[in-house]
Amino acid sequence: MRMTGKDKVLRRPFVEQAGQFGSGGDTPRHFLERGLERLAAIEPEIGAFVTLSLESARAAADKSAERWRQNRPLSAIDGMPVGIKDVIETVDMPTQFGSPLFEGWRSHKDAASVAALRAAGAVIVGKTVTTEFAMSFPRGTRNPHDPARTPGGSSSGSAAAVAAGIISAGLGTQVIGSVLRPAGFCGVVGYKPTVHGISRTGSHDYQSQSCIGVLAASLADTWQVAIEIASRTGGDPGWPGVTGPLTCPTPRKPMRLAFVETAGWALAGDAAKSAFEKACDRLRAGGIEILTRKNHVIVDSLEPDIAEAMPLSMRINDFEMRWFIRTLADRDVEKLSPHARERLTKSADMTRAEYIEALARRDEIRESYAELAADCDGCVTLTALGAAPVGLESTGNPQFVVPASMLGVPALTVPLLEDEGLPLGLQVIGFADRDADVFAVGGYLNRVFEVQ
Amino acid sequence: MRMTGKDKVLRRPFVEQAGQFGSGGDTPRHFLERGLERLAAIEPEIGAFVTLSLESARAAADKSAERWRQNRPLSAIDGMPVGIKDVIETVDMPTQFGSPLFEGWRSHKDAASVAALRAAGAVIVGKTVTTEFAMSFPRGTRNPHDPARTPGGSSSGSAAAVAAGIISAGLGTQVIGSVLRPAGFCGVVGYKPTVHGISRTGSHDYQSQSCIGVLAASLADTWQVAIEIASRTGGDPGWPGVTGPLTCPTPRKPMRLAFVETAGWALAGDAAKSAFEKACDRLRAGGIEILTRKNHVIVDSLEPDIAEAMPLSMRINDFEMRWFIRTLADRDVEKLSPHARERLTKSADMTRAEYIEALARRDEIRESYAELAADCDGCVTLTALGAAPVGLESTGNPQFVVPASMLGVPALTVPLLEDEGLPLGLQVIGFADRDADVFAVGGYLNRVFEVQ
Repeated sequence: MRMTGKDKVLRRPFVEQAGQFGSGGDTPRHFLERGLERLAAIEPEIGAFVTLSLESARAAADKSAERWRQNRPLSAIDGMPVGIKDVIETVDMPTQFGSPLFEGWRSHKDAASVAALRAAGAVIVGKTVTTEFAMSFPRGTRNPHDPARTPGGSSSGSAAAVAAGIISAGLGTQVIGSVLRPAGFCGVVGYKPTVHGISRTGSHDYQSQSCIGVLAASLADTWQVAIEIASRTGGDPGWPGVTGPLTCPTPRKPMRLAFVETAGWALAGDAAKSAFEKACDRLRAGGIEILTRKNHVIVDSLEPDIAEAMPLSMRINDFEMRWFIRTLADRDVEKLSPHARERLTKSADMTRAEYIEALARRDEIRESYAELAADCDGCVTLTALGAAPVGLESTGNPQFVVPASMLGVPALTVPLLEDEGLPLGLQVIGFADRDADVFAVGGYLNRVFEVQ
Repeated sequence: MRMTGKDKVLRRPFVEQAGQFGSGGDTPRHFLERGLERLAAIEPEIGAFVTLSLESARAAADKSAERWRQNRPLSAIDGMPVGIKDVIETVDMPTQFGSPLFEGWRSHKDAASVAALRAAGAVIVGKTVTTEFAMSFPRGTRNPHDPARTPGGSSSGSAAAVAAGIISAGLGTQVIGSVLRPAGFCGVVGYKPTVHGISRTGSHDYQSQSCIGVLAASLADTWQVAIEIASRTGGDPGWPGVTGPLTCPTPRKPMRLAFVETAGWALAGDAAKSAFEKACDRLRAGGIEILTRKNHVIVDSLEPDIAEAMPLSMRINDFEMRWFIRTLADRDVEKLSPHARERLTKSADMTRAEYIEALARRDEIRESYAELAADCDGCVTLTALGAAPVGLESTGNPQFVVPASMLGVPALTVPLLEDEGLPLGLQVIGFADRDADVFAVGGYLNRVFEVQ
């Protein structure tokens, strides 16, 4: 059977379905098998996985089914089929970083986040494709909405596999836009926590503004995965980690939202901008005040700071990654992508003084942004310039999603808009350590725009 | 030739010797070969190395010699023979964590600190023995001063190899007392920076108060290694890293030093306490004021806080390490030491709330300690309860060295005292981000006590 068009996308939320497991109306094993049917049908075309672990996934799903039958699930995600971005370590599978330099490489241990997922009963289906070292060089995954288009990156496989209904959630990492961009392009929910929100130990994303994030089929699944991990491992060592309610925060109507243009707005497509503006009109009509650079002085003064996000982030990342790329270049430079080699050249002459200066500038911008918290419930903007671009050679422009990374604040994309008949994310950007609030706002937007 | 007694210890400072390299009076290759003669004679008895890389060390030393000949050294440590604790990744050698679970395991990349050492021209001789996972279970290294005694841990091999004159410096890591304790027992200089002071990327010490530190033959070598690494990689991603002069800070006579008893004083041996008290008398005679709990109210109020260092650190470490030990226990619990298994049991029921509470308590103590900075130039105390204990089954009591780890402040041990005719460290504890100051004080003490 060859699937076509809309058949290839089907989000399969898990948490909502789990109510059936206790009663026997469904089981985690059946839930998994329905995903594996989609895997068989769609994976050959989209290439979301680099390694599969179906036998142990089935065994884990059976154990979960038994726990649900006894009414003793380990958590609300007990039995949830998940995928792990291939820069995060797993004891039973290789971790290959999307690079031929790490073909077959094994850590022989689980990352903290993976250990927490297992402790919560999640069923790990496989490792999902990442761009080379979670940077820009793509590794062939296709967008299930249109296989001629990029799924975005660097968490390409997690986004595509969730969109295709193979898994309910995937782990990703984001230092520029690697969770929100692919989530937006593939029409799934994507969440990047406050920096340090989920322990990165055993995840090979070394940069100071990098985060482990979640791509999932629904807001409820997204929050649940994040909170189950964080409550078991905390954040990065020394940080408490994401805190908030133990189930997805209740939708809450915001009083004021700030529309931040970012450096993306000037580059965005007309249809995408129009879709976003219509959404804002609708929110205004519902009584929500929208602050913009035209009507609010803090927003206006912040926009130039936020527009620095891309060059500033790249400068910081280059310094923090250059020892890593250099050690690999010394091993075999031919096995690095031209992109990685270019990054190495660019960072070669950087001094620590320049790095310290860039960190100070980032702190300064973070402080300015924090002042906005007094005036609104969060920020909204697009997730991308438009629908996922045609072609697999680039993962798309990250200008709308890099600001939250640079700011170290939580961000959420919800697939509520459309462009070219394809998904377009509506992004909510929050304030540091107030992750639950972006879900409360996101839940409200979801309610308003889903029921159009 | 069988060496006996004092022949087995000979610190071989490098930075001081490097003046000879330009003139041709000595070369890095000759410097290395003298260390390798000591390796051949002493290593079979002390077991400081787990992996050696002599061929590439010789090649690196020859390249360094050529640079010095051309008067173009890469740094002041160009050609320095160094050892790398076996929890820190090296592209050309396995990283085995002192555990049979990682026998032959390879990261296929250098840690940031190792990449920086190579970029500075250092000659990497091999991987030095660590206790299991840099925790407490020892792996057989012996103290060169007396092979019946422990060298301390967890950076056992780096301490023993520097004391034996095989290498001039070794990298270590410290979360409790794993740099200062072995340095003290083996009679070498040991330095733990302000937390986050040297990038830990690629080092498998995951705890929030852990640091990469340096064990070396002299104060000058110690500082030089730290500053050469930090100026190339910065600190942990997002932190500037150790800052200060590009050569060892000039010795400076302090006006006031605080003697902190810590939980160690009540347990220390009489001879060790007497040696320390005599040192204090001498400092007083030289016009330095010594603040104690008897004559200074802040010191008195701090002592009970500092005495919490051990249980508080263990609680935090247990939470931060338990996912790691659990994933290994699931692989093969028989290959974990009884000690690691016990840690797993102890931490099994810990909640995130307890962890967050412990972090908050640590922050509170750090803030109290910072107040002392207004009243003195630093703290002094012993490094250990006495000389290295006889026996290899334990690495010794860390009560004197855990406070600086818990406080996140720089600490330095200098081998200036004696107990049982064996080395006993004098410890300087400083204030956060003022690492150069502990070297200025340490340099002064070195000058006073070396010339007795």
